[in-house]
Amino acid sequence: MTSAYRARRDRLRAALAGSANPADAVVVSDLVNVRYLTGFTGSNAAVLIWVDDPAADRICTDGRYITQVAQQAGDLEAVIARDCLTELALRARDSGAATVAFEADTVTVAQYRGLRARIADDHDTPPRLTAHTGLVQQLRIIKDPGEIDLLRQACGVGDQALATIIERGVIRAGATERQVARALEWEMYALGADDIAFETIVAAGANSAVPHHRPTDAVLADGDFVKIDFGAVVGGYHSDMTRTYVLSHAADWQREIYDLVEAAQAAGRAALHPGADLRAVDAAARSVIADAGHGEHYVHGLGHGVGLEIHEAPGIGALATGTLPCGAAVTVEPGVYLPGRGGVRIEDTLVVTSMETAGDTPDLLTATDKAFTVI
Amino acid sequence: MTSAYRARRDRLRAALAGSANPADAVVVSDLVNVRYLTGFTGSNAAVLIWVDDPAADRICTDGRYITQVAQQAGDLEAVIARDCLTELALRARDSGAATVAFEADTVTVAQYRGLRARIADDHDTPPRLTAHTGLVQQLRIIKDPGEIDLLRQACGVGDQALATIIERGVIRAGATERQVARALEWEMYALGADDIAFETIVAAGANSAVPHHRPTDAVLADGDFVKIDFGAVVGGYHSDMTRTYVLSHAADWQREIYDLVEAAQAAGRAALHPGADLRAVDAAARSVIADAGHGEHYVHGLGHGVGLEIHEAPGIGALATGTLPCGAAVTVEPGVYLPGRGGVRIEDTLVVTSMETAGDTPDLLTATDKAFTVI
Repeated sequence: MTSAYRARRDRLRAALAGSANPADAVVVSDLVNVRYLTGFTGSNAAVLIWVDDPAADRICTDGRYITQVAQQAGDLEAVIARDCLTELALRARDSGAATVAFEADTVTVAQYRGLRARIADDHDTPPRLTAHTGLVQQLRIIKDPGEIDLLRQACGVGDQALATIIERGVIRAGATERQVARALEWEMYALGADDIAFETIVAAGANSAVPHHRPTDAVLADGDFVKIDFGAVVGGYHSDMTRTYVLSHAADWQREIYDLVEAAQAAGRAALHPGADLRAVDAAARSVIADAGHGEHYVHGLGHGVGLEIHEAPGIGALATGTLPCGAAVTVEPGVYLPGRGGVRIEDTLVVTSMETAGDTPDLLTATDKAFTVI
Repeated sequence: MTSAYRARRDRLRAALAGSANPADAVVVSDLVNVRYLTGFTGSNAAVLIWVDDPAADRICTDGRYITQVAQQAGDLEAVIARDCLTELALRARDSGAATVAFEADTVTVAQYRGLRARIADDHDTPPRLTAHTGLVQQLRIIKDPGEIDLLRQACGVGDQALATIIERGVIRAGATERQVARALEWEMYALGADDIAFETIVAAGANSAVPHHRPTDAVLADGDFVKIDFGAVVGGYHSDMTRTYVLSHAADWQREIYDLVEAAQAAGRAALHPGADLRAVDAAARSVIADAGHGEHYVHGLGHGVGLEIHEAPGIGALATGTLPCGAAVTVEPGVYLPGRGGVRIEDTLVVTSMETAGDTPDLLTATDKAFTVI
């Protein structure tokens, strides 16, 4: 993996050199971005990246992680200090940087003030500190093969865990939402997940009409919708999938809104072309639901990027800007929620692929069947 | 609980009025601090607190939480907006505040720049923005009775979960570290924990010499130390406890370092007097270990505050400053780690009590026995 991390750092160099606000070097202190650029997973770190001198790149962490940083980021020389942001900015200054970029969406005002004071301390011509936002987050949109492989593994754990609890009859009348959630999480851990991707949602009956319901001791009953939104983390990468089932016997209105959401979700998936406008992707699914008169019952965006974080760029919604690049990993998750009655959401995680490699069909990472199912 | 939240806001008013850097109002945007001051647990919020006019206090959150904010913080008028920090600062400006405080250890440089621009927009005399750090965190050190009750419940869940897995024979030769960790977490959830307090540590054999070992598929063997550091969350409050056992049969060196850590831990607990110097508390335990020649094998601080966060003020260590107030909830957790062989840590969560109420003995919230135990 060393070369993948180096390739990511090289992309950052190019992005910084080409930005409207260039700098000689950047200190990255967001821990997810540090992991992305180096592989290091400790809880205190920063990385210094030079536009023109990769050999001068450094990672900084504190004494607790001396062994770990050598194992995980052995291709970078490590600096050991507590205040990594300041330490690396001082190194950049002392190596002659005239302008040093930092992550304004991560660095707090208190950190910045401390940094500004230290960097000017005893120095006649301290470097200029220049604020950037979303610099690494933008690079993270496009996944490399190693990342897609981890996403695929994480999605596979989710698929298999859900299949196992269905097979074992865990999702049944009489079980509580909490019991189903915990059983699903237990299976994901047993399948080797590092962690669960976010607080598992299991929502039965009228609770399924709440988009982000938290599992309670509510008891599942025959005729309920059971909406399950969950994911696993493998190697730092998150899966995200929602399936909605009906228990025992389905009413006509349930089949009707399920079919509608299924059609909208298929339209959303079909719109995931490289270069597609993000708003157009959202509209492709939303218009299906709106045309059926349920626009007001679909209260959230269509999807979001997924990777080292469960929610990352790009957002796919009515207010999004920009286009979808080849290699982006995103969710497609429309829903219809009828307050007091119940709701359906169907969600997949997919990777946008180019026509050359896969006929322009997005790569579906979550394989669990989406056909209307009565359990 | 409404009156407890109001009392906390009143303490903040007094702290701000008495600070070296006073302001007419403060916008609190750290989400843990928002929860502390209002009870609201949504993922986007801020609260505006006026020094002189409690009736003008406001909470802000976005449209997803309209119902929830009314349920959890119904005693405060809610403002619905996306950018809560800016929205409340603008309200403070428009209500005539000359100086508005903000949390410099939470607000990022990007947020601050946006806020500064908006507040000056179309306004001849915008208020001065004044940076504070640790304002609410300092108040949070002293727990009120409702908080102590939740800490006690969380610690009780931990005690009971550990007792259950021991009774069921989960901690045995042949089990993996991961299996023990997952079983413990499962029990905590079954006992009503909202969440686990932090990544459960189960470290067997030589792994027990790593202070913050992550559970692996390593198999427990007879003669191993098994170090278990874990906690539950109840009502937002965290428990934190470590116990170290020996499997099957103990060697003399194991009993020796166990006895040493036990004595050090008892000395640390005995030093938890109201008004005690934090460094003196650390030294009380550390000197026991150092005097036995193991100072270099005790590589971390003695303890930390615990509450809405697993690690909060005050830190108890060799570099700490300040004293321990009555009502502080802290951990006491010395350890001795022999690289390549094994380690022992014993940790309790306690509340510092006054002589009047409890004879100056700290209130021990973690009740699991600490005597040397071979399982």
